[in-house]
Amino acid sequence: MSSLLDEPRDRRRRRTRAAVLDAAAELFSRNGFRATSVDAIAAHADVALTSLYGNFPDGKAEVYAVVACRLAREHAERMRRSVERTGGGAPTARAAFEEYVRFHRDEPLAFRMLGLADVSEVHGDVVDQARSEIGRVLAGVADDVIDAIDSADPAARSSVLLAWAAINGVLALEQRGHIDAATSDSLLGDAVELHVARVAQVCEV
Amino acid sequence: MSSLLDEPRDRRRRRTRAAVLDAAAELFSRNGFRATSVDAIAAHADVALTSLYGNFPDGKAEVYAVVACRLAREHAERMRRSVERTGGGAPTARAAFEEYVRFHRDEPLAFRMLGLADVSEVHGDVVDQARSEIGRVLAGVADDVIDAIDSADPAARSSVLLAWAAINGVLALEQRGHIDAATSDSLLGDAVELHVARVAQVCEV
Repeated sequence: MSSLLDEPRDRRRRRTRAAVLDAAAELFSRNGFRATSVDAIAAHADVALTSLYGNFPDGKAEVYAVVACRLAREHAERMRRSVERTGGGAPTARAAFEEYVRFHRDEPLAFRMLGLADVSEVHGDVVDQARSEIGRVLAGVADDVIDAIDSADPAARSSVLLAWAAINGVLALEQRGHIDAATSDSLLGDAVELHVARVAQVCEV
Repeated sequence: MSSLLDEPRDRRRRRTRAAVLDAAAELFSRNGFRATSVDAIAAHADVALTSLYGNFPDGKAEVYAVVACRLAREHAERMRRSVERTGGGAPTARAAFEEYVRFHRDEPLAFRMLGLADVSEVHGDVVDQARSEIGRVLAGVADDVIDAIDSADPAARSSVLLAWAAINGVLALEQRGHIDAATSDSLLGDAVELHVARVAQVCEV
C-alpha cells in the first residue's frame, strides 16, 4: 500500500517536496492552519506555487495531512527512544508518559494536528489516508510502550491505554479553554504519577 | 447578555423554534451532522423552510449550535440530579462519574456535539457564542460536582477535573477508532473506580 510519506523518485521533486513540508510544518506550528495560506507556504519554501501543486494536487489540506503524518512518525520515534534501556516496569512507564507530556508541551499544536482537527470537515482521500496512517502510528506507539514495560499481566495494556486517555483528556480540556495552563500542568503531573503507580502495581504482581 | 437559548416572545415563533430544535436534535443524533440537511430538518419538524430561516438565519450551523447548547443544559441538569442527596464524598463522586459515563453512552454523538466538532471550521458569531455558552455550562457541571463532594481539601477539585479528563480521553480514543467499544467500556469502568478511589482518599484526610 502506498503511504502519504512515500518519497518521489525524482531528486528535484524530492527536494521540492521536502522544502514545502519543512516550511509548512514551521508555519502551521507557529501560526496554525487557518492563518497559513498556500502562498505563504510556497514563499517560505522558496518554491513556485505550480511546483507545490505539482507535488500536492489537493493543496493546503494535503500538505497539512502529510505534515501531520510526519509529525506522528517523529513522535513515535521520540517515544521509542525514550523507553530504550529503561529496563521495563514502572520506570519504563514513567519515561514514556513523561516523554509524551513533554512532546505535547514542546509542540502545542501537535495534539490538534495529530487529530487532523483542522481538516476534519474535508473529506478527501488524502485526509482519510492520513487519518488511518496516523491511527496506525499512534497505535504502534502504545504497543511499543506496552512491549517495553514487559509485563506478563494483561492489565499492563489497559494501564497504558488509560494513561494515554487521561493525558489526552487534560490536553483537550486545556485546548478547549476549560482549564488554564497552570491547572493543566498540575493535572498532567498528577496523571503521570497516578498511572506510573498503576503500572508499578501491575508489575509487582 | 443574550443567550442562544433565549426563547422568542411570540408564541407561534416559539412553537416553530421548538419544533425545529426537536427535529434537528433527533436527526443529528440519529444520522450525524453531515448527513442531515436543512431541508430534512424542516420537513421532519413540519415547518416551512422560510420559517426555519426566520428563526435561524444562519441555517444548519446555527440550529446545530443551539441544539448543542440545549444538550449541554440537559446534561448539566442530569448531572445535578445525579448528585442530589448523595451526601458528599466518594459516593457523590461515584454517582457523578457514573452518570457522566451513562450520558455519553446513551448519546453517542453528544461528545462530538458538545465539542462543536462538526462546525469547528465555521467561524460565525453563533458558533463562538455556543462555544462559550457550552464552556460555561460544562465548567458549571464540574463546579456542581466539586461542591456536592463537599470536601475542604482543594485536591477534591483536581481529582474531579482529572476524572473528567480521563473519561473524555477514553471517549475520544474510541471515537477516533484507536480502541474498540469493549475496550472503551472496560477503560471507562477502570477510570470511574480509580477516580472514585482518589476522591475517597482526599475525603478521608
